[in-house]
Amino acid sequence: MQEQICFINGSFVPAGEASVSVFDRGLLFGDGVYEVLRIRNAVVFRPQAHYLRMQSGLDTLGIGNPWNEQEFACLCAELAQRNRVRGGHVYLQVTRGVAPRTHLVPRNLQPTLIGFAAEADLPKWKDRPSGLTAITVSDPRWARCNIKTTMLLPNSLAKQRAADAGAYEAVFVSEDGLVREGASTNVFVVLDDVIYTHPDDQRILPGITRAIVLDLAQAEGLTVKQQPVQVERLQDAHEVFLTGTTTDVGPVIRIDDRPVGNGKIGPVTAALMHKYSELLADETGTD
Amino acid sequence: MQEQICFINGSFVPAGEASVSVFDRGLLFGDGVYEVLRIRNAVVFRPQAHYLRMQSGLDTLGIGNPWNEQEFACLCAELAQRNRVRGGHVYLQVTRGVAPRTHLVPRNLQPTLIGFAAEADLPKWKDRPSGLTAITVSDPRWARCNIKTTMLLPNSLAKQRAADAGAYEAVFVSEDGLVREGASTNVFVVLDDVIYTHPDDQRILPGITRAIVLDLAQAEGLTVKQQPVQVERLQDAHEVFLTGTTTDVGPVIRIDDRPVGNGKIGPVTAALMHKYSELLADETGTD
Repeated sequence: MQEQICFINGSFVPAGEASVSVFDRGLLFGDGVYEVLRIRNAVVFRPQAHYLRMQSGLDTLGIGNPWNEQEFACLCAELAQRNRVRGGHVYLQVTRGVAPRTHLVPRNLQPTLIGFAAEADLPKWKDRPSGLTAITVSDPRWARCNIKTTMLLPNSLAKQRAADAGAYEAVFVSEDGLVREGASTNVFVVLDDVIYTHPDDQRILPGITRAIVLDLAQAEGLTVKQQPVQVERLQDAHEVFLTGTTTDVGPVIRIDDRPVGNGKIGPVTAALMHKYSELLADETGTD
Repeated sequence: MQEQICFINGSFVPAGEASVSVFDRGLLFGDGVYEVLRIRNAVVFRPQAHYLRMQSGLDTLGIGNPWNEQEFACLCAELAQRNRVRGGHVYLQVTRGVAPRTHLVPRNLQPTLIGFAAEADLPKWKDRPSGLTAITVSDPRWARCNIKTTMLLPNSLAKQRAADAGAYEAVFVSEDGLVREGASTNVFVVLDDVIYTHPDDQRILPGITRAIVLDLAQAEGLTVKQQPVQVERLQDAHEVFLTGTTTDVGPVIRIDDRPVGNGKIGPVTAALMHKYSELLADETGTD
């Protein structure tokens, strides 16, 4: 089997040779942003949306964007091709660069560019009609979760905690009891024919799939309110679902060992799963 | 000039060759801890305290400690020696290791070990009798700042914001107005003959210098209360000082462009600066 090919600062190299300096600020300070894009039928899905989000994060951190939109899309496609990925993900990361270690933010560094791609099992809800489970956890993360930085330790620990509890996702709840988002997903709650999701502020990631699903819901004539939901109201929720690049639209049928609604995938979730898979097929071909 | 020598996974290599895999979880997730130790007169100061703090962080994250206490101290000393550092710092970092990227926490990885040392200008308050300035900033950090992880972007951004305002340090203030700690220091506030500092909980780093200064204050018969101070009370404070490995005991004479007390280094701060420098001299020799 061919070794995985990575991108590092302009070159494509075997994974075993893809490395960064120990003085890289990504490693020493978590000083950088990343994107994970979906590859389906060898097509990279919606690179523009990921590019714009990365641009926004880099702007916030004062790091120059090394790519224009076309270069970003081409790099994703080339990583997919070189690694012969038909279904999976491409990962891109930009750090501020390499500098002697100091808390002060160095200016005008050459950003470090990292990319790789790999096959992955993508969610196929047709094959898993029983839905997903989730747990709730208190949100320990920093106050700027809208920036997609690599400071992901709390997300990683929460995801593992969910797995240890036999669940797919950990849903972060604020100190004052508001449902924010999952460790790697956004969260939607259906209550009395209204779809609620946390507003697009500094406390959640502006999910690419989240935005698509909001559009799909609107097109379906569904009522969506971008308002946070109190965690207690999850008990009354008729439906809950997750969205994310690695999750698609994921129906949640149990949270903290209680069934959501009647414990089955509800009609709103099913409709959006269907619409989302149609859109995926439109843009990346049928399986 | 000789190239800096770094430690990486058991080997000493020139800085230009010291690198980690792009799949290192330190780089992808901020999944690891670090320590910065002071070197004075070529002696590493208090390695045991740093070792124990690193041990605690590794335990919390479920990462095995690659070193026993003696190995840790020896490595610090060897890095100082190989880099001919007489006054400066040694940096050690342990990440969970290298694994295919997933939020789930991989078990039983070989941790990645990183070390380097360099000369640095150490604070000599005798030469800077005018004291330091600070600004206050809202604390955007995550809820487990007691773990010395490399998720330091908020600290770095705050430190730069202080520098942009002509100040040395940024002091984090909680949403409910409590003074927590500086971006790279702990904070002490003297009010009516009592020294206040934030309690040693999950919201601050258990500083090595902080602990020493608490001992020194007690030995001096000073009253210390480990209670948070409301940010407004900084206006009434007679004295404010910072502690940290790279700061020692740092007198703050202005905060947010207002003088602290009479705008000069106060007697409590001066006494603790003196005692701390005596202790340093006792353990690492006189200059």
